[in-house]
Amino acid sequence: MNIDCTTSLIEIKSQHISLKVPHLSVKTHSNRPSLKPLRNVTRRKMKSKLVTKNKFYNPCNEVHTKTNGTTCGLREIMIGRCSHYQYIKNGFVQPNGSRAKNCTELYEAFESAVRYKSYCNMNMSTYGRYFELALGDLHVINRAMFWSGTYAIAHTYGSNGRNYVTLEDTLAAAMVNGLTWCGKENDTEGFDFVSCPYRCKDNQWADYAFWGLASKTFAQLAAGEVYVVLNGSQANGKSAFRNDSYFRSFELPNLRQNGTYRVTKVNILVLHSPDAEVVERCGQKSLLELERLVQNKGFDYACEDDPEELILIMCSEHWHARECQVARQVLRQTWNKKLYGISNSNRNLLSLVIFSLIFGFNFIF
Amino acid sequence: MNIDCTTSLIEIKSQHISLKVPHLSVKTHSNRPSLKPLRNVTRRKMKSKLVTKNKFYNPCNEVHTKTNGTTCGLREIMIGRCSHYQYIKNGFVQPNGSRAKNCTELYEAFESAVRYKSYCNMNMSTYGRYFELALGDLHVINRAMFWSGTYAIAHTYGSNGRNYVTLEDTLAAAMVNGLTWCGKENDTEGFDFVSCPYRCKDNQWADYAFWGLASKTFAQLAAGEVYVVLNGSQANGKSAFRNDSYFRSFELPNLRQNGTYRVTKVNILVLHSPDAEVVERCGQKSLLELERLVQNKGFDYACEDDPEELILIMCSEHWHARECQVARQVLRQTWNKKLYGISNSNRNLLSLVIFSLIFGFNFIF
Repeated sequence: MNIDCTTSLIEIKSQHISLKVPHLSVKTHSNRPSLKPLRNVTRRKMKSKLVTKNKFYNPCNEVHTKTNGTTCGLREIMIGRCSHYQYIKNGFVQPNGSRAKNCTELYEAFESAVRYKSYCNMNMSTYGRYFELALGDLHVINRAMFWSGTYAIAHTYGSNGRNYVTLEDTLAAAMVNGLTWCGKENDTEGFDFVSCPYRCKDNQWADYAFWGLASKTFAQLAAGEVYVVLNGSQANGKSAFRNDSYFRSFELPNLRQNGTYRVTKVNILVLHSPDAEVVERCGQKSLLELERLVQNKGFDYACEDDPEELILIMCSEHWHARECQVARQVLRQTWNKKLYGISNSNRNLLSLVIFSLIFGFNFIF
Repeated sequence: MNIDCTTSLIEIKSQHISLKVPHLSVKTHSNRPSLKPLRNVTRRKMKSKLVTKNKFYNPCNEVHTKTNGTTCGLREIMIGRCSHYQYIKNGFVQPNGSRAKNCTELYEAFESAVRYKSYCNMNMSTYGRYFELALGDLHVINRAMFWSGTYAIAHTYGSNGRNYVTLEDTLAAAMVNGLTWCGKENDTEGFDFVSCPYRCKDNQWADYAFWGLASKTFAQLAAGEVYVVLNGSQANGKSAFRNDSYFRSFELPNLRQNGTYRVTKVNILVLHSPDAEVVERCGQKSLLELERLVQNKGFDYACEDDPEELILIMCSEHWHARECQVARQVLRQTWNKKLYGISNSNRNLLSLVIFSLIFGFNFIF
């Protein structure tokens, strides 16, 4: 043990540089449309009610600002992502050595489902061929990770398929994640680049046409043990296992119960964010119902609140949260010891930890 | 303060789920070729010495495995990334509302520099037009982050330009980051998809043609305060501020000393990885020389060892490291208290922290 009490704390702290608070997730939420309670609706041929000033106006040709319509460069972005996925990322999700897919063919299968079509004329089979081409030969064994209300942390932890595979790590979803698109009838481009409706009053299936089928298809590919990251700190009376979640509506019902590639166990990870209330934990409220549903389907069930692996990530992203302060101080002092071999700082830390633990963390905040 | 001693620890731990160790960085290193000490070399027209069995053989048309040559789908990936960068990412690095660049034109400027050309016939001006088109109108003010030996953590913390802007967050570098390419003379494709040399014995400038100019150009765009993340735990006798680093060879010499967009201050962040030795810290060895060079150029200088923001990220990625264990336990117990209001666990933790701090962390490992 190297103790060097001659180095003063003043010297150590003299050059503090003001740094930005870490925000590690670039994309913090999904762009799946939120679900309304599912109803049975008679599908009718609908006309888009959107009116644009000039039907040949395309903002992609102008000085660029983000629009509410189809993402400019949709074709190039999708084909580029497909090539990246297959030639660079390949190996994380799809087995190395598998036959490369034709990215142009994939894009065209997607395009033919949407281009020149009215948004409200979509349904759950619209993108069928696209998903079949993109995911037809895939099985995600012991690595599938579902999420609900936990987009950012599930994806940070999953690490683009390196640790776990989320829906967004599959080729079909990776090609469009974060993009917006909607078709436009009687238009030269066939896409509406000005505004997409997001909601179709008389045909809710239009809203789920892509992400509903994506979720269903991904659930059907999951095998062995699967992982579900839920939010036990939901505000505004929302449950961790919500009635109107994609997980409940499209994923859980489609996990395979039979065959070689059946699901064996469902592992639930319930997270409670720093600085947020604990609304539900394993074995409580909606999680009791989830347990019953999982067991009724014949799967093993396990549930864990806040695995350590994920707490540290939560604190990395919520640096200033009350519950992360003592650990942050512990790390500072550990590194000071590593750097300078100081034992004085240990005594400061010790006082901090003793008081904070005895008096409930309140005195330091 | 809510204390509920009726919940036993056994109940809490009964459903532990075995999880993967977090690895948050998908890409852990740069693909800039490493530098040799720069020499003055008379440039000569060289012929590539690579021999392939069949000069019309292109592995991209086969069942896909990674090759050592040009990345399959280079054109599609580059144009797709360019579109993504401008239509989705735009705002992080380039000002929102700036005129969209023509991605095909950009790719073609890149392609014309390399296609049908011998690898060894490159030099530091080869990609000049590409960088001018891609970065001509950019200034990175108070947010430029350089790195040397710290690729993964600098990029995790920089968060794709959200916090800080690294070279790889600029359009010119983002379009090719992680890709491989080399031209091939007398070939129908004009690219060698089988193997790229990486080293040109008689013309070292070929090796730096792209990433050398990229580093130089990025340094010239940096303004105000800049940040440099260095590795104070380098193994094998390497320095934190190395003679043969891109930072020293291409970046530091090109920081602007004059004009509206001059650099005012260089902030050095020296990191010491968990479970690694402290080889150098601020004010020691090569960092003394760095300080002298920075001050000679008229910039203010600051240096900080292991800012807290970065320690937590290092521990998120090196979960099992000795120096992260106490903080990990502190977080576990903090969350147990949040979840179950247990005070018993505080006493366990207190013992752990007291002993680890007094006896130098050794007893628990």
